[in-house]
Amino acid sequence: MIAKTPKPPYYAVIFSSVKSENTEGYNDMALKMLKLASEQPGFIGVESAREEVGITVSYWENLEAIKNWKANFEHKEAQKLGRKQWYSCFKTRICKVEHDYGKQN
Amino acid sequence: MIAKTPKPPYYAVIFSSVKSENTEGYNDMALKMLKLASEQPGFIGVESAREEVGITVSYWENLEAIKNWKANFEHKEAQKLGRKQWYSCFKTRICKVEHDYGKQN
Repeated sequence: MIAKTPKPPYYAVIFSSVKSENTEGYNDMALKMLKLASEQPGFIGVESAREEVGITVSYWENLEAIKNWKANFEHKEAQKLGRKQWYSCFKTRICKVEHDYGKQN
Repeated sequence: MIAKTPKPPYYAVIFSSVKSENTEGYNDMALKMLKLASEQPGFIGVESAREEVGITVSYWENLEAIKNWKANFEHKEAQKLGRKQWYSCFKTRICKVEHDYGKQN
């Protein structure tokens, strides 16, 4: 559930969103995109939770992998629907993970 | 609910955790730490959600602010309890936000 990530540096995409009232088709697409993302070159892992705000953090080996995933055809279709229909607001943040620590199984 | 952040670069601390079965005192401490964090120099904002995994992302002006918050006396006490009692596993990731975009109110 907590992503297993390599020694830094690696990259994180923090996607924060608040859903609109029109979320028809959202859950199916979210699952599909999660599967598709995990098949992309350079994908490391993902963590996700939603209460009032939804936070999905995906981890990637490098910026090129993130750029390619953003440009993926099916993902672009999902992004369009998200922007127009599913999200009342969202923010995507591209980050370089410089340091990490923790306690993991 | 989605943090209002300045133009990059700025910093993010992604704190991912899974709770143990012994969460006595956790909620009070979480609220207290949220308030205390928001009073620290260099604090920008925070986003948080929990399902199976809890994700709290706090945003900071620079690494110095993050370092000072980590070393805060009351926060250190909370970290000890978290490590020993409240979390079965956790990971803290210190990130530089290099780029962002979105749709926000």
